[in-house]
Order: sequence, then structure tokens, then C-alpha cells
Amino acid sequence: MIVVTGNPHKLLEIRPLFEKHGIRIEVSQVDKMEVKSDDVVVVAREAAKAAYRVLKRPLVIDDTGLYISALSGFPGAYASFVQKTIGNLGILKLMEGITDRTANFVTAAAYADGKNIEAFVGEMPGRIALAPSGREGFGYDPIFICDGEMRTYAEMSFSEKVAVSHRTKAFASLLDWYDRVR
Amino acid sequence: MIVVTGNPHKLLEIRPLFEKHGIRIEVSQVDKMEVKSDDVVVVAREAAKAAYRVLKRPLVIDDTGLYISALSGFPGAYASFVQKTIGNLGILKLMEGITDRTANFVTAAAYADGKNIEAFVGEMPGRIALAPSGREGFGYDPIFICDGEMRTYAEMSFSEKVAVSHRTKAFASLLDWYDRVR
Repeated sequence: MIVVTGNPHKLLEIRPLFEKHGIRIEVSQVDKMEVKSDDVVVVAREAAKAAYRVLKRPLVIDDTGLYISALSGFPGAYASFVQKTIGNLGILKLMEGITDRTANFVTAAAYADGKNIEAFVGEMPGRIALAPSGREGFGYDPIFICDGEMRTYAEMSFSEKVAVSHRTKAFASLLDWYDRVR
Repeated sequence: MIVVTGNPHKLLEIRPLFEKHGIRIEVSQVDKMEVKSDDVVVVAREAAKAAYRVLKRPLVIDDTGLYISALSGFPGAYASFVQKTIGNLGILKLMEGITDRTANFVTAAAYADGKNIEAFVGEMPGRIALAPSGREGFGYDPIFICDGEMRTYAEMSFSEKVAVSHRTKAFASLLDWYDRVR
């Protein structure tokens, strides 16, 4: 199966899942076509459809959003653009003086093989930290504390994060489904 | 010609331009398919292409971005999502303590008729105000001061804004081109 991603961190996180299911993967960095939608399921499905038109072989592609309650769901599915521009310090500045720090990380993983497109969602509720902390992971990991934790994703070890993360949940559901239908 | 927009403010701004060129318009609110790109030209062209597939008649559609230098181009082509979530107060919070307030408003207006897709760009350089001011217009108008002005777009009268705006420039270019080729 082809995994479409240009992000080495993501790949590191999901590769072991595919191995556990005995699925050999290849990586493609074909440009991800992204529709502008606030729904990561829509983004992932359309991206899978578009990537299949180029690669013409079974593939998976994912999209992740971070939804902060006090900011009306910002940055949502635009998480990567927001990370590239205002970054974690921008998010913390927006959250200054705000006590409700609830946030939800959502990954949609979509599979396409020319006949089917299937999308699976993994969520991780949590909160935005008061300051960035930790060096593991990438993106919002230094400012996101998942439910049941006192540490940010970036303070958890790689294997601790991967054991619980939104992305793991999405890909685990996808692979369970794939096991049943293949 | 069909103007695809669900925004009555935009329509009010551009309708007189079409009338000046003797072009009768119809308005369609068909859903705008938006690709996730930081380039308004790409967004407008793809949206025009997609709308043509639905409407099958000559049409125009536009996309507008606001690029703030000190925020690495944020909110860019995601201006409408950012407006809906963190809004002008969010932008001002991000700009607290920042002296370089340079910003650029960019509209891309795209025309599609099944054979051609043409896009035209209008820009308006300016700066982000220290506080929102004024009641005219919509979106970022209360916090955007265009070059050569002391007032925000929202403090200018409707006709003053329309005379200079990024959106007017884009549609004026499009209509000049249309006059030459039709």
C-alpha cells in the first residue's frame, strides 16, 4: 500500500502500525491536493481521490486538524498553514487570558483503491498548555496536553505518544477495516 | 454573465462595474469549491473551473486574501475562515506589540466559459490598524488602512472604498480583458 505523505514524523508514527498488520508500504510524496474545508474527513477523502488519479494504486493519506473551543474551532483543518505562519507562539498569544483551554486533535485517514474511498477518524481531546514544553514530535505537540496527562505530547516519549494519539486511532481503525475486507 | 458569490457585500461592490461595461449579470450561490492553497489565483481558478462544471455557462468567481507581513502572510487565502473563528480581535491580539503592521489585500477574479479560464489580480497595500474602527463594508475592513489613507476601509464611504479597492482592481482588469476579447 502507498502512504502519501511528505512528513517524516507522521511516517515514523504510522509505519509500525502497518508492519503489525503485515502490510508492506511504499511512500509517495506526490502533491497532496487539499480542498479548503473545515472538515478533515472531506479534506482526506478528496486528497485520496486526487492522489489515486495520479498514482493509480491503493493508497492512504491523512489530514489532521486541531480544534480549539475558545477560538471557535480555530485553527481546525488549517492547522498546518497556521503552524507555518503564526506558529505555537501565535496560538498561545491568542489564548492569553482565556481559561477554557479545551482542544481536540482529529485525524482522518482515507483509503482509496479506485473502487472504494473509506475514511476513518481518530480523536484526542485535551487542552492547550500555558507555555510550549518538550522536544518530541512536531507541530502543535509542544502546546497540546491530551486528556489524562499533565505533560504535552512533546514531553511524552515517542512510544507513549504513539500509543494514544489521534493519528494512531485513525490508522488503527483503517487497518482493522482493511484486514476485514481484503 | 453569472457572478458566483454568496456574499451580498461583494455583490454590491462589483455590480456597478459590470453595469458600466454593459454586462447583465445573474447571481448564483452554487457552493464554491475551494482548494486549500495559499495563492488566491489558484483558489479562484479552481473554483471557476468547478463552478463551470455545475453551471455550464460563462461565469466569474473571486477569492480574496489578506497577507500580514509580520505574521508570515497569515491569514492569507484563509482570510474568511480566520474571520469566522478568531475574527478581527484575534488578528489585533496577534499584532499586539508588533510595530511592522504592513499588510496586503489581494483579490483574484477568475472567468471561466468552458474554453478559457482567465484570472486577474488586484492588490491594495496597507497596514493593520491598532484598533477596529468604522461600520462600512465587511470582514477585515474595520482593521485595514490602505496606503495613502488615515482611515480604515470601514471608515471610508462605500463609494470611496469601491473607487480604490483590491476587489475593484481585479474585476476592472477582468472586464477590460473581456471587452477586448468578446
